[in-house]
Amino acid sequence: MPAKNPIVIDLKFDPAAIAKILETAFSDRRSINLADPANKDADLSQADYALLWKPDADLFQRAPNLKVIFSGGAGVDSMMSIAGLPDVPIVRFVDRSLTTRMSEWVVMQCLMHLRDVQGHFRSQRQRVWAPQHGPEAADITVGVMGLGVLGCDVLAKLKVMGFNVIGWSRTRKQIDGTETFDAGGLDAFLARTDILVGLLPLTPETTGIYNASLFSRLRRDGALGKPVFINAGRGKSQVAADIVLAIETGTLGGASLDVFAVEPLAADDPLWGLDNVIITPHDSAVSDERALMRHVEEQIARFERGEPLQHLVDRNLGY
Amino acid sequence: MPAKNPIVIDLKFDPAAIAKILETAFSDRRSINLADPANKDADLSQADYALLWKPDADLFQRAPNLKVIFSGGAGVDSMMSIAGLPDVPIVRFVDRSLTTRMSEWVVMQCLMHLRDVQGHFRSQRQRVWAPQHGPEAADITVGVMGLGVLGCDVLAKLKVMGFNVIGWSRTRKQIDGTETFDAGGLDAFLARTDILVGLLPLTPETTGIYNASLFSRLRRDGALGKPVFINAGRGKSQVAADIVLAIETGTLGGASLDVFAVEPLAADDPLWGLDNVIITPHDSAVSDERALMRHVEEQIARFERGEPLQHLVDRNLGY
Ligand SMILES: NC(=O)c1ccc[n+]([C@@H]2O[C@H](COP(=O)([O-])OP(=O)(O)OC[C@H]3O[C@@H](n4cnc5c(N)ncnc54)[C@H](OP(=O)(O)O)[C@@H]3O)[C@@H](O)[C@H]2O)c1
Ligand SMILES: NC(=O)c1ccc[n+]([C@@H]2O[C@H](COP(=O)([O-])OP(=O)(O)OC[C@H]3O[C@@H](n4cnc5c(N)ncnc54)[C@H](OP(=O)(O)O)[C@@H]3O)[C@@H](O)[C@H]2O)c1
Repeated sequence: MPAKNPIVIDLKFDPAAIAKILETAFSDRRSINLADPANKDADLSQADYALLWKPDADLFQRAPNLKVIFSGGAGVDSMMSIAGLPDVPIVRFVDRSLTTRMSEWVVMQCLMHLRDVQGHFRSQRQRVWAPQHGPEAADITVGVMGLGVLGCDVLAKLKVMGFNVIGWSRTRKQIDGTETFDAGGLDAFLARTDILVGLLPLTPETTGIYNASLFSRLRRDGALGKPVFINAGRGKSQVAADIVLAIETGTLGGASLDVFAVEPLAADDPLWGLDNVIITPHDSAVSDERALMRHVEEQIARFERGEPLQHLVDRNLGY
Repeated sequence: MPAKNPIVIDLKFDPAAIAKILETAFSDRRSINLADPANKDADLSQADYALLWKPDADLFQRAPNLKVIFSGGAGVDSMMSIAGLPDVPIVRFVDRSLTTRMSEWVVMQCLMHLRDVQGHFRSQRQRVWAPQHGPEAADITVGVMGLGVLGCDVLAKLKVMGFNVIGWSRTRKQIDGTETFDAGGLDAFLARTDILVGLLPLTPETTGIYNASLFSRLRRDGALGKPVFINAGRGKSQVAADIVLAIETGTLGGASLDVFAVEPLAADDPLWGLDNVIITPHDSAVSDERALMRHVEEQIARFERGEPLQHLVDRNLGY
C-alpha cells in the first residue's frame, strides 16, 4: 500500500498546544504543521487535505491539489472570504463539547438577565440586603435566531430551564413543542421575544442584521420590562453603535456579547462600560483542539471509505 | 349546608399583597387575616385551618381548634420551634414555580462558577480582553445534599446542562442514571464533589453541617482547582466563620450563599466582601403568594373530601 498523502495544518491557535497534539494525531499519514519554522518551504503539492484557521495568504498556491478543506472553527465566514479558495468540499467543525459549552454560556446569560445578577452584585458591593421578586423563566420568551447545531441545543436546554422558547431560521424548522418562524416571519418572531439570542453564521444576509430597527421591534411589554440582546454568533452581524444607543435610550434593557466586529475589542470601546451589558472575549465556546483533530480524522476516514462527508458548507449560502 | 369554618392567615409577608390576594382566595369560607388591624381581637376559636409564616406568639392559644396547619414556606424549621405547636398535621408549601425558581438559581450559580463569571467581570471592568479556556460542565461533578422536591429538580436540570451529578440524602434514593449516597456514604460523596449544593432542611441533624471539616473533605484535584460551596437551604446549616476561613485559606475556591443564620445579613459581615463569594438576599426561590393560596385551597379540598393531605411534615424528623 503506498503511503497516504499528507495533511497540511495552518491553525493560528496556540502553536505549542497544536504541536503537542500533532505528535499523536493523524497516525496514518504525515501532517505538515506550518506553524513549525522547519516547514517554511515544505513541499505541499502532494497534500490531500488542509486543516485551516486564518491560513497564510499563499496557502492555496502552495497546496494546489487539496481534495477537502477542514475549518478549524464552527464558523466559516473568514474562510469564505479568502482569495483563491479552491472549489473543493469544505467541512466545518461540529463537536459535542463546543455545542455544550455554547449552551452553558447562553443559558447562563439568559438566567443572569432573568435573575438580575448585575443588580444583585451592585447590592452585594454596597452590602445592602435587597430581595428581588422578579419574573420566573416561564414568564419570559427567549427567541433564538439561527436554528443550526448550536441554536437547537440552546433551545432545548432553555426549555428545560422553564423558558418559553421560539426560533427563527432561513428555512422553517420542525421542532417538537416549539413555535418556529422562517425568514418571512421575522416581525412576528421579534414581537414575541423578550430575550433575543443570536446564533447566526456571518453571511452577506446576516451582516448588520442586529441593528436599531430590529431592536425596536422586540417585545416591549414583557415581564423583564425591556428586551435583552445576546449575541454569540459573529460580531459583524451586530451594529455596535446601535447597541450602545439602544442601551442608553432604553430600547434594550441589557445585552451579553461574546463577539465583536473587531477582536480583541479595543480598550476605549464604549461597549465595555455600558450598564447591564456583559462582555466576554469570544470564549463562549472555545474549540477543543484534541476534539478538532479527532473530528478531522473521522471525516477523512469517511471520505476515504467513500462515505459522504458531514458538516459540509454550502458555498452559495456561505455557511 | 352550614357555613364552613374559617381559615386564619398570619403571614409575615408583604401585607398589601396578601390583603389583595385574599379578596378572591378561599371563596367558600371566611379568611381572617391577622395582618388586618380590624382582626386584632377576632374570635379564632372556630378556625379549622391556619396558614402561617412566623405567626404571633399567642396564635395557638387564640385558635385552639385547628385541624390542619399550613406553612407559608417550603421550610418548616421556624414553625417546628414555636412553643405550643398543636399536634395536628402540618402541610408545607410545595409548588412548581418555587421549585423552578430554585433550579434557575442553582443552575445559574453552578454555571457562574464553572465559567468564572467573577473573573470575566473583573476583566470587563479593566477593559482587558482575556479569553479563558476553562473546564466544561462534563469535567465537573456537582454533589447535591438533600434529594427532596428541590434537590431532585436541580439534579435533573444540572444533568441536562452537562454536569456530572451525584446526590446525598438521609435515606438512599433511586434516581435513574445518578449515583446516590445515604447518610453513611457522606465521605465517599464529598470526595467526588467539585461543587457542593446544599438543599437540606434545617433540623438538629443538619445544623452546622456545612463546616470546616466537611469543606476539607471535598474533592481537591478537580478541574476547577478548588471546590465550591453553594447553599440555598437554610443559613443555620452553615458555619459562617468556617466559610470565611475556607475561602481565605483556599480550602474553598468560591461560594454562593442565599441563606444566613441571621437575616438580613449585617452590613459589616465579612461574607459580603469575600473573593469569589456571591451573596443573594434569600431570594433564590421566593414564594408566589397566589400559588400559595391555590395550594392551600387544594389541600383543604382534599382534606374535606377525605383524601390524604400531601407534603406532610414528619414531626419526628422535623421536615
Ligand atoms: N462565539 C463562539 O465562540 C462561537 C463558537 C461556535 C460558533 N459560533 C458561530 O455560531 C454560528 C452558528 O453555528 P451553528 O453550528 O449552529 O451553524 P449552523 O448549524 O450552520 O446553523 C446556522 C443556522 O442559521 C440559520 N441562518 C443562516 N443564514 C440565515 C439567514 N440569512 N436568515 C435566517 N437564518 C439563517 C440557518 O438556517 P437554515 O437552518 O435554514 O439553514 C441555521 O438554522 C457559526 O456560524 C459561528 O459563526 C460562535
Ligand atoms: N432559599 C430559599 O429561598 C428556599 C426556598 C425553598 C426551600 N428552601 C429550603 O430548602 C429545603 C429543602 O426543600 P425541599 O422541598 O427539597 O425539602 P424535602 O422535599 O423535604 O427534601 C429534604 C431532603 O433533605 C434530606 N435530608 C433531611 N435531613 C437529612 C439528614 N439529616 N441527612 C441527610 N439528608 C437529609 C431528605 O432526605 P430523605 O429523602 O431521606 O427524607 C430529603 O432528601 C427546605 O427545607 C427549605 O429549608 C429554601
